[in-house]
Order: sequence, then structure tokens, then C-alpha cells
Amino acid sequence: MESKQTAAAASTTRLSPFKYSKRVLLKTILERRDGGLELIGERVVIGGWVKSSKEVRKEPVPRIDGDHVPGEPEPRSDVSCVEILQSRIPFLRTIVKVLGGSGGNYPLKDKLEAALHKPPPPSTVFLKVGDGSCVASLQVVVESSLAPPGQLLHTGTCVIVEGLLQKPSVLQGKHVIELKVDHVHHIGIVEYSTYPLSKKRVPLDKLREFCHIRQRTTTVQSVMRIRNALEFAAHTFCQNNGFLSVQVPIITTTDGKGSSEKFHVTSLFTEAGEKEEPKKAVAEIDGVSLDVIKAAVKEKSNLLEELKRTDSNKEAVAAAMQDLNKTNELASQLEAREKSKSKTSQKVDNVKSSEGYFSSPTYLTASGRMHLESYACALGNVYSFGPRFQAEKGESPKHAAEMWMLEVELAFSELEEAINCADDFFKFLCKWVVENCSEEMKFVSQRIDKTRIDRLQSIISSSFERVSYSEALDALKKVTDKKIETKIEWGASLTEADLSYLADEIYKKPVIIYNYPKKTKPFYVRLNDDGKTVAAFDMVVPKAGRLFSGSQNEERINILTARIKELGLAAQQYEWYLDLRRHGTVKHSGFNLEFDHMVLFATGLNDVRDVIPFPRSHGKANY
Amino acid sequence: MESKQTAAAASTTRLSPFKYSKRVLLKTILERRDGGLELIGERVVIGGWVKSSKEVRKEPVPRIDGDHVPGEPEPRSDVSCVEILQSRIPFLRTIVKVLGGSGGNYPLKDKLEAALHKPPPPSTVFLKVGDGSCVASLQVVVESSLAPPGQLLHTGTCVIVEGLLQKPSVLQGKHVIELKVDHVHHIGIVEYSTYPLSKKRVPLDKLREFCHIRQRTTTVQSVMRIRNALEFAAHTFCQNNGFLSVQVPIITTTDGKGSSEKFHVTSLFTEAGEKEEPKKAVAEIDGVSLDVIKAAVKEKSNLLEELKRTDSNKEAVAAAMQDLNKTNELASQLEAREKSKSKTSQKVDNVKSSEGYFSSPTYLTASGRMHLESYACALGNVYSFGPRFQAEKGESPKHAAEMWMLEVELAFSELEEAINCADDFFKFLCKWVVENCSEEMKFVSQRIDKTRIDRLQSIISSSFERVSYSEALDALKKVTDKKIETKIEWGASLTEADLSYLADEIYKKPVIIYNYPKKTKPFYVRLNDDGKTVAAFDMVVPKAGRLFSGSQNEERINILTARIKELGLAAQQYEWYLDLRRHGTVKHSGFNLEFDHMVLFATGLNDVRDVIPFPRSHGKANY
Repeated sequence: MESKQTAAAASTTRLSPFKYSKRVLLKTILERRDGGLELIGERVVIGGWVKSSKEVRKEPVPRIDGDHVPGEPEPRSDVSCVEILQSRIPFLRTIVKVLGGSGGNYPLKDKLEAALHKPPPPSTVFLKVGDGSCVASLQVVVESSLAPPGQLLHTGTCVIVEGLLQKPSVLQGKHVIELKVDHVHHIGIVEYSTYPLSKKRVPLDKLREFCHIRQRTTTVQSVMRIRNALEFAAHTFCQNNGFLSVQVPIITTTDGKGSSEKFHVTSLFTEAGEKEEPKKAVAEIDGVSLDVIKAAVKEKSNLLEELKRTDSNKEAVAAAMQDLNKTNELASQLEAREKSKSKTSQKVDNVKSSEGYFSSPTYLTASGRMHLESYACALGNVYSFGPRFQAEKGESPKHAAEMWMLEVELAFSELEEAINCADDFFKFLCKWVVENCSEEMKFVSQRIDKTRIDRLQSIISSSFERVSYSEALDALKKVTDKKIETKIEWGASLTEADLSYLADEIYKKPVIIYNYPKKTKPFYVRLNDDGKTVAAFDMVVPKAGRLFSGSQNEERINILTARIKELGLAAQQYEWYLDLRRHGTVKHSGFNLEFDHMVLFATGLNDVRDVIPFPRSHGKANY
Repeated sequence: MESKQTAAAASTTRLSPFKYSKRVLLKTILERRDGGLELIGERVVIGGWVKSSKEVRKEPVPRIDGDHVPGEPEPRSDVSCVEILQSRIPFLRTIVKVLGGSGGNYPLKDKLEAALHKPPPPSTVFLKVGDGSCVASLQVVVESSLAPPGQLLHTGTCVIVEGLLQKPSVLQGKHVIELKVDHVHHIGIVEYSTYPLSKKRVPLDKLREFCHIRQRTTTVQSVMRIRNALEFAAHTFCQNNGFLSVQVPIITTTDGKGSSEKFHVTSLFTEAGEKEEPKKAVAEIDGVSLDVIKAAVKEKSNLLEELKRTDSNKEAVAAAMQDLNKTNELASQLEAREKSKSKTSQKVDNVKSSEGYFSSPTYLTASGRMHLESYACALGNVYSFGPRFQAEKGESPKHAAEMWMLEVELAFSELEEAINCADDFFKFLCKWVVENCSEEMKFVSQRIDKTRIDRLQSIISSSFERVSYSEALDALKKVTDKKIETKIEWGASLTEADLSYLADEIYKKPVIIYNYPKKTKPFYVRLNDDGKTVAAFDMVVPKAGRLFSGSQNEERINILTARIKELGLAAQQYEWYLDLRRHGTVKHSGFNLEFDHMVLFATGLNDVRDVIPFPRSHGKANY
């Protein structure tokens, strides 16, 4: 070993091993322009996981049909029965032990023992090994004298092997080199009966059931490398343009979206030392009051979801939300009364609300823009990249409970400047992926969507359409196509279908729609001089829908307070936000990018659960 | 204006305005080597907030003592009484109005009216304006003819001004240029009676009460720019070294730390209309239930009316109507039930745990390492930067409920390689800050800690001490100093004080302590061959304490399952984690950096609440 390593060190002048392990990353071999040809003769140590395999004997033996076990590699025509048995030695040992223990004589005893004791016939194993650093895998050749083939062949097996790079011994596929192994340092076997992957392709929705394993597929790996590239591209764009990163709080007492359903955060359960069912009271129920309230709440929630589902206008949603909130308040009051009652009862619930970790109700943030504004109004140009949360229950491929968002805020800037920035940002991201993930993009184009590289290229070179809401509405009204509802009244929200139609069919390029009716956007968006519209925008991309949303936010305190009053919002929680207008106010604008949707766009995938490492959705938070 | 802008465009060949607004960032003027001297004669538009101010009249007037109002700029010797009155015109107008309304005659009437109507005596205002892009502020000179000095002078006022850069008219301080304003585009006044900042320094603990405003101080701005630089440095180090970013889940069902107090996540409150105490069944309270449902009916009727009145879309109206009908039905049912109400009580818990958003109890993650391992065992080298949570209640300056952490995981690597990586990482971060935040570092050195730059420099050039736990224990036992407890039994945890003593007093440089007794580390850390110690490490830095912690995690499934059993942990939740060992296991190691502690180290500050934008701690989650 010692001398080998020295030899390796001497000859690897053209290959730098990864700094923090003894192996060479496969991408440093396989992503060379010549595919690694110039490295022939180099000694390397590589590590990775088997993607597919083949075992070859010099003298072919008759094929044995009908012994294919599901979940295992398919029967190989050139492997004998005994060899197959030998590949299952751990399993056989168990059988022999069990059968031996239960009497000593059993069918096939001789054959099984022969398989266990006879040395395996020599063979050569060909493995395709990937290490996650690139799309391609390396062909690795291991003689059976070096390691039991049965341990190596299963998809998912981990190996660390050493040897010389050489021209392929058998020409198959497009490899120009392979690794001829002379030392096997490690084998991490696979318990193949429970391993969910094989060399066959597994559908994406099936893979979602194995979020701890699916990253070993070439598809998920490619997606995750594209995701990584997009994240660093986003940071790079911001830093290059003088934006400072600010981490907005995840736990918050400010409701930045108003209408969204929220996750509550509490430490009450732990404090009470109860895990599954905290503070389960007591409840002398001789009637229905809470049932009824709950039913009412449920009804209201349903209405709200219906309104949202049908893309009703914001006003209706806001009114329904307000209605729901009031019922919730009533329920709280009722409970408060109940609580004071239960204190006097025999079963005292000793966890009081004031014992919570925080002194006020806290939520998981749905949007960081308001917090970010306070930094923009001090540091100038800022951004935040982090997780955002929504407890909405809709089963949408575009929605998960936990999604990452990029938010940008610019002081001293108006709507048009935010739009310009979003425009440049989007092009920068597309260009970055094309330039830095060429192999991954080739792979997703083959595997997922043939048009993907062209789509990204066309974004980089195209000038986006910019139309006001009113113009967009006029364009939609002229449509004779029956695919969409064209009788939209001015003031109504544009549905996702409307937006997509504008980008896909009418303008056939990314469209920026701005100046929306004020009722359709949150209270803090800046009122335009017409008194009817507000300075908000959406960027809609063909075949992808809305990717960026933004607005110039209201800097005039009188208009902002009037809007809060008009909408009946809980003014108290916005006092700090109003302070930004009381003290040194200035025009400012910003936007957000649903990062997971950007990954969908870059990869051509349709479901966010396929691009989020551990997706959380309604009823599902495994891992 | 048009001609001015053209002139500006023509002459700003050496100054590029910020791409997404019409202003020039101050750092592009003030962070030049010559301090901006070469820009004299340039026309610029700048925007920012007043940090301090001075008003000067050519003919000095007698000083008026004793009229200093707390919270306002201090009395200026060169400003007349009338001028001071004029600076308070909005306030005076209110007084005059109120007094006038209540009779018409009042004391000082003449003087007040004179102040209101007499044109202000001409003066020159000198403002120090900062825009958050750099430490330095620009001296801005505004003649009173251009804008009322009273609106400009308060700390925190926002201005957008245009003019020519010139040599300072009055030499004061170290400025080499100033901006002679000829156009005031915007003034965002300050309501000075409630504004928490002035030109005087406010202590950091006081600033924590104003987390939406404190970022306007030079100190907090410098800290946040250093924080920003450290974040990008961390991403850059990882990307340069082939680590891929993976976002681990924030909401989790896996307890990665075992011992920490956790935050629970629930949507039950919203669903059930309960706020403080989830899943609590409630006794009926006479008279309330019907009230509530009637209130609901009324609300729904109102909503319906509102929808009709505002010409909302038909779907929304139909949905609201349907909802109203259902609620009416409910009310009828309730009335029927109320009539037939029996007096016997029964225990009912209507809210089952399955009604939560997720189907199992969920927490805010305390550590992402276990999730990250699943990606390391697929992609090789990965990292995650995100918020982590702990509900511990200790009031420690090093602890907050929500802190950002950087976690790194390397497959095919052992403990020593993870230590090497952490070592390089730390040096890289220190070097980056020194090179990219030189002005900020100068400022924090002056303001917070004089030794700070030297400390960072010494990290970059020093080789860290590496000692085993046993060696560290021996070294501590030899100490005769009475400052620490030296009678530590082998097997005990090293306290923060022990660790600091090792770095501060014994080795006087960063120390890496490794191979801890197995009881002192989590179950997943790899057992060493001695059967007593595990492959974990801490990196302790003089005067900063522990910054990095890491370990090689157990890859052998039999040992891992034995540890889980031994410690009596809930094995079921770790099944997915064990799968990583069942299928293609391999040695791997990693570490984490408490990012906020790194910012403390770089800035010399002591309390994490001063370096986190919106800190969350026990009892405090404002904003």
C-alpha cells in the first residue's frame, strides 16, 4: 500500500485528488474535454456508488431462465447457477444455518453446501460507478479474485477502489477510459431486498417516497447540482451588484402576507413534558358550543379555500379571511373563558399561555419583505435567501409547506427599476446555468424536456414584454380562443391561467405585467396617482408561469395608515413598519423569486417536490 | 432638470451610478484610495440618511441657553431663537391652531406668528450623510434657500440631493471632498420626538429595543456588512472546493440532537380557531354557542352583501351564498340541540392529532447534519447554510432561539480530513474579512475591540494545536492556576471554561480537541477502536471559545443500532438514517460552524443579539 501511494503521488501530476479525502473526484476525470484520454496510465483512487453492473466470464455458460428475483439485477446469460447462488452467500448461510438447526437434512443440501464451499469461478465485474460530482459515471473493472462479485454487483453498492486508468477493454457505450482496479479498499454492500433503486429507471413520484435515497439517481443528482448552481448564481448576482445579504427572521410576530394560513410555533408541548397530546383537558362537555364554532371555522376555511381555488378576487378572499379570523377570535374568547373555568375545576391544566417560550403568538414567516424593508431603509440594497412557510392545504405541484425564497429590496428605487433588476437577475440565472451546468442540462434535456436548453437560451437573448394590467386585460378580451375565460371585469385578479395565456399564446415570450388594481395586492403596495392601481408587477414566463413578483411599497405614511384602516387589519403589529415611514422615509421597491420554481424552470420538471431535498406538504413531513 | 441630467451624464465618466436607481452609491465616491479627490467637479445625485448636522449663519447671533429639548439636536450657538422656532413650524402651526380656536388671544402670540410668517434668515446646512454602502459619510452642503433647515437637520432624515463634488468649504475632520447641493429631490423627515437615534452614541443593549431602526447606526451597519461578507465567503469556500449546497428541512420529524428543547410546529391553532392552547376540548358555556353562530351568520351575510355590492365574480358570490346557507342550517341544528340538551356530562376530545397539518408531530430543526448525511452519501461533498432552532431558555449572550448554522459533510473522509477542512475554512473566512472589509474592520477596531484585526491576522498565519481529549485533560490537570477546576475525571465533559482555558492560557492559539469520551457526544458519532472514545472534535479559539464542532459519524450499522438501543432512543424515527448504512455505507465526516459566533469573532462583539438582524430569545420575538 505504502509504495503504491507513493507511486500514485508521483504520477498524478495531471490529476489533483480531492483535498479532504484520498480519492479523486470523478468530474476531474470525466469532465475533461477529451473525456479523460490524456489520463491513461494514471494511478487513481476513486470512491462512489454502483449505478449498474455486469459480470463476465471468459467461458460462457448456459443461460438459466426464470430465476429473476424482483428488486435484484436481472439474470445474466453468462453467469452460472452456482455463481448466482454464490452471489447470495449471506442469504444462503442463513438458510443453511436455519435448516441445519432444524434437523440437518433438507432438499438441495448438497447443492447449497457446494455453493458455499466451492471457490467461485473466476470472472470480471464491470461496474458503472458515480460519485455525485458529475453526470457521467466511470467504468470500473474488477477481477473476481479481488472481491466477491456478489458483493459488488448491486445498484447502490459503495466502493473505494484503486487502479490504473486505461483504454476500455471492451468497447461499449461512449467511454474513452476505464479504471482497471488492482486494490479494493472498501465495499459498502446493499441489502438488495429493501433497496428501492435498481438500474431501471424509477418514476419521480415513486422516488418521492425515498427522499433519503433518491439523490443517488442521476436525475435527482443533476437537479440538485442545478439547484446548487442557481443558489450560488443568485448570491453572485446580488454581491456583484452591491446587495447585502440579510437574514430575516423565520419565527415572526408580523403577518407579512395577511391572507396566508400560518404555522404556529410553540414550546408548550415540551415544557409540559408531554409529547403526543399536550394539555388534553378535561372537558366536561355537555353541549356543543365548541363543536359548533369548530364547524363554523371549518365551513369558513372551506369557503376560503374555494375562493382561493377558483382564483377569486383578493377582496373576496380578504373578506372571507377577515370573517374566518373573527370566528377564530370568538373561539379564542370562548376558550379563554373555558380556561378560567378549568382552573377552578379539579383537573387543573397547569400550562398557561404565558408560559410559552415567547410572550406573544409566533408564526413561521411567509414573507420576509417587510423585515427586509427595514434594512433597505438603512443599508440601501439588500436581499434575503431563506425558507418561507405556508400552511395552505391545496395539493398543488407548485406548492409545498416549506419553500425557499429570494427577496430583494432597493431603497431609492421605483417600480421600473425593480423590474429592470428582476429582468437582469432572471437572465443572469439562466446564463449561469447554461454555462456552469452544461452536462446536467444535456442530461435533463434528454431525460425530462428536450426544449430546456433552448428555453434558457431564448430567455438570455430576448427582451421581455412589459404591459400594464389594463393592457393585459384588453389583450385577453380580444382572444377568441375558447381555452380561457375572456369576460374579465377590470379589477379582477388575473388567474394563473390568464397569466400563462399572456406569456404562452399572446406575447410568446416573458411578460411583465404591472400596475394592478389595488384590491388585488397587499396593503403595503404603493398607490399610483390614478388612485385605482398600485405599483406591483409579476413576471410570467412561457410554460413556467409566474416566477418573479414585486412592487414599489408605499412610502407615504398617511396613505399606508389609511389602507390598514380600510382593510381592517390589526394596526398594532405594523407599528414598527410604520416607523420606517415616520422616520426618514424614501421610495423603495423590491421583488421576490420563488427559488424552487426557478429550479423547476431550469430543469423542466413540474412538481416542486422533485426539486426540494426534503419536501414538506400536507400530511407529509417524513425525515 | 433635463439639462442637468444630461450634464451629469456627460461628466460622470469616472463614476458609475448604481444600476437600479438614479443615485450614486457613496462607497464609489468615498472608498477610493484618494478619498474621492479625483472626482472634484463631478455632478452626482446621492441618497442617504443624515447621521449628524450643523447649521451655520454667516453673521453669528447670540446664543440662547436653556432651550434644549431632550431628543432634539442640541442648541446651536449660531442659530437665532426665531430660527429655532422656525425649525419647529409644523408643531407651532398646531399650537397656533389650537390656541386660535380656543379664543384667539394667548401669550407669545406675536412672537409665534412672526416666526410663522417671517422668512427664515439665510443659513448653510452641513449634513453628514450615509447610505449604508460604506463606513464613511459624505459631507453635504445645503443652502437654506433650497430647503427648510428644520426639515434637514435631524439625525435619521432621508435626503436625495444633487450637486457638484468640491473641496471642503470649511476644513473639519478628514474629508477631502464635499457635495455642494444645487437641487434637493427628496426629504424624508424624522418625527424626532419618537426617533430613538441621535448623533450621540446609543449603547448596543439599548439599540436592541429598536431592531427596525438600529441598522441606521454606523456600528450595526458595519457589523451587518461583515456578516454579509462572511456569508458570501462561506459559500465561496464551499463552491471553490466542490461542495454542493443542499437545503435541509426546517420542519422535521427527526430529532437530530436528542437532548435539545424543541419548538413544535402546528397549524392546529388556525384550524381549530385556538390560539394559545391546541387540541383542548372545551366545556360548553351557556349562551355563547348560539351567539357565536349567530355572529357567524351575520358576518356571512355582510360578506355576501359586500361581494354583491362590489361586483365580485359570480363564483365568489355563489360560494358565499352557499356558505351562508350552510351556516343557517347549522344554527337551526344548534337550536334544536340546545332545546334537547341533557344534563349528563361526557368527555369528548373533538380534535384528534390527525387534524394537524402534518400527520406526525413536527419540530423546528436544531441540526441538519443527519439530513445532510443522506446527501453526502450520494453527492459526495455537501453543505447547508440555514436557520437552526433551540428552545432552551438560558439567558446567554451566545444563545438565541434562532441562529444560522453552516454544516458541511464529506463522504469518503475521516475525522482528520474534516479537521483539515474546518481549519482551512476558518482561515479562509478570516482572510476574506480582512481583505474585503478593511474599512469596517478599522471601524470595529476603533469602536469595539482594538485587537480585532491582529486577531484575525494571527489566525490566518498560525498553525492550530491539535490535542486529544486525554492530552487536553492532562494539560488541564497540571494547571496550578486557581481560575479553573482542575480535578476533572476522565469521561467528564469539558466545560466552556475548560475549553477557553486551553486556548487562552495553555496553548495561546486555536486548539482542536478530538477523540472525546463516547458519553459526551451524540449517538451517531463513530466509535474509535479503543471502545471508549468517539471521533469528534471541537475547534476552540482564544477569547472566542468554540467555533467549529465536528465528527466522523458511525458508518457501521451494527454499532449504530447498538448505540441507539443502549441510549434508549426512539429507534423508529432513525430507520431512514439507518438505511444509509444498510445500503452502500461509507466512512464520512463533517462539522458545523455556528455562523453568528463567527460574526462575533470577526467583530469582537460579545452578544449574538447584536449581530443577528432580528434576534429571537426567550420572551422576545418582536417584529
